[in-house]
Amino acid sequence: MFPFMIRIYGIGGYEEVGRNMTCIEVDDEAIILDMGLYMDRFVALQEKDIEMSYENLLAEDAIPYDGVINHLKNKIKGIVVSHAHLDHIGAIKWLYSRYNVPIITTPYTAEIIEKNVKVKKLIRVNINSGYKFSKNIAIDFINVTHSVPQASIINVKTKYGSILYGLDYKNDNHPIVGRKTNMKKLKELDDVLLLIADSTNADEEKKTFSEIIAKEMLRDIMLGMETDGKAIFITTFSSHIARHKSILAIAKMLGRKAVFIGRSMYDYIESAEKLKIVDFSEAEKIKIPKRSSKKLEELNKKKNEYVFIVTGGMGEKNAVLTQLADGRLPLKIEPQDFIIFSCNVIPTPTIQANRKILEQKLHRKKARIFKDIHVSGHAAREELRDLIKITQPRHILPAHGSIDKTAAMAALAHEMGYELGKNVHLIQNGQSMVI
Amino acid sequence: MFPFMIRIYGIGGYEEVGRNMTCIEVDDEAIILDMGLYMDRFVALQEKDIEMSYENLLAEDAIPYDGVINHLKNKIKGIVVSHAHLDHIGAIKWLYSRYNVPIITTPYTAEIIEKNVKVKKLIRVNINSGYKFSKNIAIDFINVTHSVPQASIINVKTKYGSILYGLDYKNDNHPIVGRKTNMKKLKELDDVLLLIADSTNADEEKKTFSEIIAKEMLRDIMLGMETDGKAIFITTFSSHIARHKSILAIAKMLGRKAVFIGRSMYDYIESAEKLKIVDFSEAEKIKIPKRSSKKLEELNKKKNEYVFIVTGGMGEKNAVLTQLADGRLPLKIEPQDFIIFSCNVIPTPTIQANRKILEQKLHRKKARIFKDIHVSGHAAREELRDLIKITQPRHILPAHGSIDKTAAMAALAHEMGYELGKNVHLIQNGQSMVI
Amino acid sequence: MFPFMIRIYGIGGYEEVGRNMTCIEVDDEAIILDMGLYMDRFVALQEKDIEMSYENLLAEDAIPYDGVINHLKNKIKGIVVSHAHLDHIGAIKWLYSRYNVPIITTPYTAEIIEKNVKVKKLIRVNINSGYKFSKNIAIDFINVTHSVPQASIINVKTKYGSILYGLDYKNDNHPIVGRKTNMKKLKELDDVLLLIADSTNADEEKKTFSEIIAKEMLRDIMLGMETDGKAIFITTFSSHIARHKSILAIAKMLGRKAVFIGRSMYDYIESAEKLKIVDFSEAEKIKIPKRSSKKLEELNKKKNEYVFIVTGGMGEKNAVLTQLADGRLPLKIEPQDFIIFSCNVIPTPTIQANRKILEQKLHRKKARIFKDIHVSGHAAREELRDLIKITQPRHILPAHGSIDKTAAMAALAHEMGYELGKNVHLIQNGQSMVI
Amino acid sequence: MFPFMIRIYGIGGYEEVGRNMTCIEVDDEAIILDMGLYMDRFVALQEKDIEMSYENLLAEDAIPYDGVINHLKNKIKGIVVSHAHLDHIGAIKWLYSRYNVPIITTPYTAEIIEKNVKVKKLIRVNINSGYKFSKNIAIDFINVTHSVPQASIINVKTKYGSILYGLDYKNDNHPIVGRKTNMKKLKELDDVLLLIADSTNADEEKKTFSEIIAKEMLRDIMLGMETDGKAIFITTFSSHIARHKSILAIAKMLGRKAVFIGRSMYDYIESAEKLKIVDFSEAEKIKIPKRSSKKLEELNKKKNEYVFIVTGGMGEKNAVLTQLADGRLPLKIEPQDFIIFSCNVIPTPTIQANRKILEQKLHRKKARIFKDIHVSGHAAREELRDLIKITQPRHILPAHGSIDKTAAMAALAHEMGYELGKNVHLIQNGQSMVI
Repeated sequence: MFPFMIRIYGIGGYEEVGRNMTCIEVDDEAIILDMGLYMDRFVALQEKDIEMSYENLLAEDAIPYDGVINHLKNKIKGIVVSHAHLDHIGAIKWLYSRYNVPIITTPYTAEIIEKNVKVKKLIRVNINSGYKFSKNIAIDFINVTHSVPQASIINVKTKYGSILYGLDYKNDNHPIVGRKTNMKKLKELDDVLLLIADSTNADEEKKTFSEIIAKEMLRDIMLGMETDGKAIFITTFSSHIARHKSILAIAKMLGRKAVFIGRSMYDYIESAEKLKIVDFSEAEKIKIPKRSSKKLEELNKKKNEYVFIVTGGMGEKNAVLTQLADGRLPLKIEPQDFIIFSCNVIPTPTIQANRKILEQKLHRKKARIFKDIHVSGHAAREELRDLIKITQPRHILPAHGSIDKTAAMAALAHEMGYELGKNVHLIQNGQSMVI
Repeated sequence: MFPFMIRIYGIGGYEEVGRNMTCIEVDDEAIILDMGLYMDRFVALQEKDIEMSYENLLAEDAIPYDGVINHLKNKIKGIVVSHAHLDHIGAIKWLYSRYNVPIITTPYTAEIIEKNVKVKKLIRVNINSGYKFSKNIAIDFINVTHSVPQASIINVKTKYGSILYGLDYKNDNHPIVGRKTNMKKLKELDDVLLLIADSTNADEEKKTFSEIIAKEMLRDIMLGMETDGKAIFITTFSSHIARHKSILAIAKMLGRKAVFIGRSMYDYIESAEKLKIVDFSEAEKIKIPKRSSKKLEELNKKKNEYVFIVTGGMGEKNAVLTQLADGRLPLKIEPQDFIIFSCNVIPTPTIQANRKILEQKLHRKKARIFKDIHVSGHAAREELRDLIKITQPRHILPAHGSIDKTAAMAALAHEMGYELGKNVHLIQNGQSMVI
Repeated sequence: MFPFMIRIYGIGGYEEVGRNMTCIEVDDEAIILDMGLYMDRFVALQEKDIEMSYENLLAEDAIPYDGVINHLKNKIKGIVVSHAHLDHIGAIKWLYSRYNVPIITTPYTAEIIEKNVKVKKLIRVNINSGYKFSKNIAIDFINVTHSVPQASIINVKTKYGSILYGLDYKNDNHPIVGRKTNMKKLKELDDVLLLIADSTNADEEKKTFSEIIAKEMLRDIMLGMETDGKAIFITTFSSHIARHKSILAIAKMLGRKAVFIGRSMYDYIESAEKLKIVDFSEAEKIKIPKRSSKKLEELNKKKNEYVFIVTGGMGEKNAVLTQLADGRLPLKIEPQDFIIFSCNVIPTPTIQANRKILEQKLHRKKARIFKDIHVSGHAAREELRDLIKITQPRHILPAHGSIDKTAAMAALAHEMGYELGKNVHLIQNGQSMVI
Repeated sequence: MFPFMIRIYGIGGYEEVGRNMTCIEVDDEAIILDMGLYMDRFVALQEKDIEMSYENLLAEDAIPYDGVINHLKNKIKGIVVSHAHLDHIGAIKWLYSRYNVPIITTPYTAEIIEKNVKVKKLIRVNINSGYKFSKNIAIDFINVTHSVPQASIINVKTKYGSILYGLDYKNDNHPIVGRKTNMKKLKELDDVLLLIADSTNADEEKKTFSEIIAKEMLRDIMLGMETDGKAIFITTFSSHIARHKSILAIAKMLGRKAVFIGRSMYDYIESAEKLKIVDFSEAEKIKIPKRSSKKLEELNKKKNEYVFIVTGGMGEKNAVLTQLADGRLPLKIEPQDFIIFSCNVIPTPTIQANRKILEQKLHRKKARIFKDIHVSGHAAREELRDLIKITQPRHILPAHGSIDKTAAMAALAHEMGYELGKNVHLIQNGQSMVI
C-alpha cells in the first residue's frame, strides 16, 4: 500500500493574522477547519464602494483562496468551526455554498454563525463532546480559554493518530466566563501526530496574563480616578463576553448602569444570554444607535450615570465609537470624558490607520484617553511551551500569523528538540504537507 | 502707537506633513500663504463614498480649518502660493471662493492650479521676481531647488522687516531641472524678522542628497541589472519633472522608449512642456489608461521595449500601478518584471496602509521590487543650519511636520543660540503668534 | 527693587532619564534639589577600568555638571533630596564635598544615603513634615507613591509662592507599602508658581497601573504555572520594597521560602526593616554571594523549595543574575527554571545592550523567561493631567526625560491651556529660567 | 555503501552577524571555512578588564564554539578564508592552534591575517584561481565585489558536486577597487549542490547600490557644502580600501591632503599598497596617534587644509574618533567642523550603545554630523535572486544573520520554487545538516 497517510492544506492564516482555514485529508475523506475573514482587508472593502462578492473578496485577500482544495470536493465530509471570531467564521457566508456539507461546531459558535448567514445543516456539539464523521475520522471539541465563549481546540482523531487544531488558545486560570482549559483531556492524549499551533504571541517571552488582570486594570482606572460628572465610554471586542461581564461588575461598584451599544456587540451578548452563559439583564442594550434617537438624547442628559460599552475599538468607519467621535449621534463626547480602549490594536495596515485617525478625532474632542487596557486571548511563549510538553506532538505546524510569528513558534519548538523541516513545518497559504 | 507689529497664523501644516496654510497679518493688511491638502485624509475620503464638500473635507481634517482667520477677511489682499505640490495648492479648490482676492504665484504653479480649479484672478510672477501688494507689503519669489519646477522661498517684505516662508526647500547643487537655490539673494537679506522653516527632515543628521544621486541610483539598477525581456515599471511622484527627465535619459541609454501613464503625471508634464521647462517629445504619454485600450494592448505585446513611468507609488486605489497590480488593464505585470519605487512612503497612516497592500499584490505577481530608489526634496539638518546661518533670522517658526519634526527643528535652532519661547516658537494648527 | 524673583537652574535630568539635579535661587538664597547619577553612563564606567573620580564621571556624563551654579556657592543653604533612588542620590558621593551645607531628606532616604557616603550633616524630616531654611524659604515633604518607600513631592515655599518639585511621582490607590499620595495636601495648595513635572511616562496615554496589578501579574505566573521541581529566580529593582513584599507573600502561598541575594537589595531591605517599614524576617538575605559559598551550595541542592529574588535585571556585569547566567556561582540555573524579570528595561543604550546580552545567556541555559512583569513607578499622561488640575501651577517645567518625553509633557500642558514659551518651559541641562 | 555524502556544520554566524565559521565534511575529509569574531562581544570584552583567553572569548560568545567538530579533527585538511574582514578572520588567533593544518586564502587576506597572528602554514592563492586538497576536494576563489579587496565566493568542488560558500558577496558594476564579480565563472557552474547564502540584506527589497553611489554621496557633501576654514573628519571601516580611494580623490578635488589615522586603517592600507592594489602615496598615514604628538599639533594648526580619515565609526573606546571626541589628542574637534560617518551602524547591542554615546559627545562639541553616507557591501534581495538564478543550486543554506535575516533569505528561495525543510535549510550555530 501507498505510504501516504495524512495531508494538511494551509488555505488561509499561514501568512497573516486572519482568514483562517485549514483542510485535513485522511485517505479518501477530508474535513475543513474554520472559514475566516481577513479583517484588515474586509474592513478596507467595507469602506469602499465595492460589491461584496466572492470574486472581489478574493481579489483583495479578504477571504481564503479555497481553489487549492477544489480537487477534494467529493471527499469533504464537513466544516468544523473552532470558535465564534470572525477570522474563523466570517468567510462562511461566501464559501459555505461551495460545499454541500454540514457545519459542526459548539452551540455558541452556531448561534453567531446563524446571525450572519443561513446554513442548511448546522450541527451543534457541546464543548468537551465529540462528533463522528466516519469510522476513520471523529472530532472532539476540547474546551479552552480564549476571548469568546465556548472556544475549543479541535482534536481530529484518525486511525493514524490525532491532529490537534489549536487555533485560538490560551491557558487562563481565572477565565471570568466559562471553564478553564481542559488540561486533563489534553494530558490524556497519547498519540498526537500534529499540533497546528497558535503563533500569535509566540514571540512574547512570558505567559499571557489572565483575564482577571484585565478586570483589575479596568477597576484601577474606573474606581481609582475622579470620574464624577464625566461620561465613561469603553470599547472592546464585541465578542469578548468575559470583558463585558467585568465592566458590568465594575460599573455596578461605581453606581453606574452599563449600556451596550452596537450591532455586533448586541448580537454576541444576545446569543450569550440565550444560552444562559451570562445574565446581563441589569444592563441596557442598544442594537443600532440612530441619528435621531430619543433614547440616546435622554442618555446624553445624564451621561455621568452610565458606563457606555461601544463597538469601534479598531476605528471602523461605521462603528459606534467612530460615530461618537464624528459627532454623528445625539450622545456626545465632551472634554474630560473618559474613553477607555479595553483592546489592543490589531497590527495590520488598514486597522492601524483607522485607529490612528480615530484617536486624533478623540484628541480634538479633548477626551481623556486610556489605551491598551487589555490582556490578550492568545497564549504567549511559555504557555505554548507547556501545551507542547503536555501533548507531545510528533509534528508541529505553526499557524495564525505572518513569518515573524510562525518563525518564533518554530524557534520555540526547536529549543524543545524539534527540527525545522523534519518535524516543524513552515508553510504558506496554498501549500500542503504530508505527515 | 500700539506696539503690535506682525501676527502669524499657523492654519495648517503645524501638526502634520500636509494641508499647509499660513496667514501673515501686518497692521491693517494680511496675506495668505498656500492652501494645501492633507493627502492622507484626502486619499482616505476618495476611497470612501463621501461627497467632497468643504464641510466633509474639514470634518476629516483633509483641508486646513481657516475659520481662525474669519475676522481678517476684509484685510486679506492675496493668496501667495510657493509651489505646485498638492499639500500646498490642493485646498484652493474648496477655500478659494471664500476669499475675493487674487492668487499670486510662479508660472508653472499657476498652470497646475488652473488644471484643478477655475480661478478668477491668477497673477503669474516669474521666479526670482516680485509683486507689490501695497506700500507696506511686497513679496519676492526666491528660486529654490525642490522636487517640482519653479519652487520658491517667499520673502514677505514689510516695513518691520522680512518674513521668509521657507516651505518647501532643499539646497541641491545639481538640480537636473531648473536653477540652483538662489543663495546670493538669500545672503543679501539683512533684516529677516522670521523664518518659517521646513522641518520635514530636520531630524536627519546629514545633507539631503542631490537629485543627481537619485539618477545614479536609477542608473545602477536599470543599466546594471539583467532586464532583457522584462518590463520595467517605475513609479514616482507625478510632479517630479526632474526625476522623469532622469528616467527618460536612462531609458534612452537602455534603448527603450519611455511611456508616461496617469492623469496627474500627464498634467504636470504637459504644463512643463508648455512652459518649455522640459522637452519630453521622445516619450509617449497616456493620460487615462482605459480597460479596453488598443494602445495598451499593443504596448503589452512588446513590453520589454519600454520603460513605463506610472502613477500610484502611494498605493492610491485608482492610480495606474494599483490598477496594474489588480490586473485591471490590458498592460500586464508578469513574473520577474521590474517594479521600481522611485519614491519614499509618506509616513501617514492611510498612505502607509495603501502602500503595504499594493506591495503585497505585487509580490503575488512575482514582480521584482525595488523600494526607496529616491532622494528627498526637503533639506536635512545640515542644510537647514546653513539656511539659518545665511539668513540670520531674529525668530524661527518650525513648520511642515508633527511635533517630533518641529521639535527637531527647534533643537537645531537651540544649538545655534536661539531660545525656545523667546525666539523659536512651536505652535499648533489654529494658533497665532506675535513678533 | 529689581523685578527678579526666582531663578531655576536645570542642572541634570533635563535631557535624559538620570542624574537629576535642580537648583532654586530665591533672592539671596538658594537650595539644591537632588544629586543623581546617570545610571547608563555610570554602569558603562563600572565595567571599564577607569578611576571613579569626579573628573572622569563628569567627562562621561555620569554625574550632573554643577559648574553652572559655581557663582551661587555662598548662597546655597542646603541639599534637599526627594527619595532614595540612585538617579536622585547617587551623585552625592562626588558632589557633596563641594558644598558645605546640610542634606535634608526623609528618614528612609537618609539611611540609604549613609550606606553610600559619609555625610557631615544629614537632617531627617518625616514624610508629610517640613523644614525651614530661613524666613524666605521652607520646604514640605509631601508623601507620594512611587517605587521606593518615603518618596515625596517637595514643596518649596517662598514669599513669591510655591514651587512643587514633582520628581518622581505616581498616584497609586493600592501602594502595598506606605500610604497613598497625599492628595489632600496637594489640593490645599493655592499659590503654586511652578510645577517641575515628571515627564517619564507623559507620552503614555493611560493611567499607570497600581502596584497591586504587578502583584496580580506575579501571582498569575507563580501560582498559575507548573513550577514543581523548578527553581524560581525573580529580579527586580533593589529599592522596590513593595515589590519584594508582594513576592514574599506569593512565595509563601506557594509554600516556598524567599531568599534575597545581592548587595544593593540587602541594603535597601535592611534599611526598610530598621525603620519598621516592612518585616521580612521570614526571608533569608544574602548580601554578597561568594563563588565558594557553602550556603549557596546548600540552597542549590533544594532549589525548588525557594524563590530567589536577585539583583541584575539591567544586566549589570557583577550583579547576581549575570553571575548566575555566567555560571560563576554554586547556585545554578538549569533548563526549565523560571527567570522572571519583574522590571522594565531602562531605555538607555548601555543598559539595553547589557540586558540583551544577559537574555541571550539565559536562553543558552534553556531557562523559561518572563519579561516585563512590572508596572511603572511614574505617572502616565492621565495622572499628570490630574496633578496639574489639582495644583493649578502658574508655570510648568517638564523634567526627567529627553526631548520626546518633555515635549509630550508640554503637549499635555498645552492641551490644558498652557502656552509653550509663556508658561510651559523646555530647558536643557545647564540652562536656567526666571519666573 | 552508506548513502551519506556531505555534512555541513554551521559553527558560527547562523544566529548573528559575526563569528562566521562553517565546516564541510566530505566522506573521510573535511575543510573549515572562515574563523571570525563576533565584533559586538569582542568589543564589549576589550572595554572590560578581562583576559583575552580562548575560554573567556567563548564564554562571551565572541568566537565560534568549535567543540562541535572535535570529532573531525583528524579529517580536517585546511582552513579556507574568504576575505579579510574580522568577522571572517578574527578568531584565527585563538582557534588556529587547535588545528594542525594550513590556511589557504587570497594574497591580501593572507597579509592581513599575518598582521594579527603568526601562522605556521599560510598558502596564498590568487583570486580566480584554485587549490586542490585531494582527489576528492578542491576549491576555487571566485572573485566577487565586497567592501574589502580580493573577496571571494569559495567554490568547494567535490565528487558529489559543488558547494558555493557565498559569504560575503555583492554584485557591483563599478567597484572602484578590483574587478567586478566573476559572473562568467558563476554562470558556468552546472552542478551546484548547495549555496551557503549571505542573508545580511535579504530583507531589503532592492539592489544594493554600487560603491560609486557612495562616492557621489561623499562628493555631494564635501564639494557641495561650505567647508572653508573647517576641519573635515571622515570615519569608515578600516578595511574599506575602495572608500578610502574615493575619499582621497574627492579630497584632492577640494585641494586638501588626506590623512589616514588609526592602527587598523594603517594596516589595511599598508597591505593594499604592498600588493599594489592602490597607491596612496599622496596621503599621510599615522599609525598610532599619541597624546603628545608634535605631528598632530602641527596638523591641528591648519586643520582646514586636510581631510582626516579616522577609525572609530562604531564608537570603539580607543579608536581615533572616540579619542577626538573625548579631547584626548592634540588634534581638536571644534564647533562647525565636519564629521562624516561613511558607514552604517552594525545593528548589535554593544556597538549601537557605543555609537550612540559617541554621537552625544560629538554633539557636545557642536560638530556638524553627517550619518550613513554609505552603501552596503552585501547583496540585497534582487542581487541574491540573480545569484540563485545563475548558479541553480539544488539546496540553499541561509547564513550570516539572525533568524529574521535568514528567514528572509528562505522566503526569497521559496518564492523561487524552493521548499523550506526540503531544499532550503534553516540551522542554528552548532547544528549540522546532510545533503
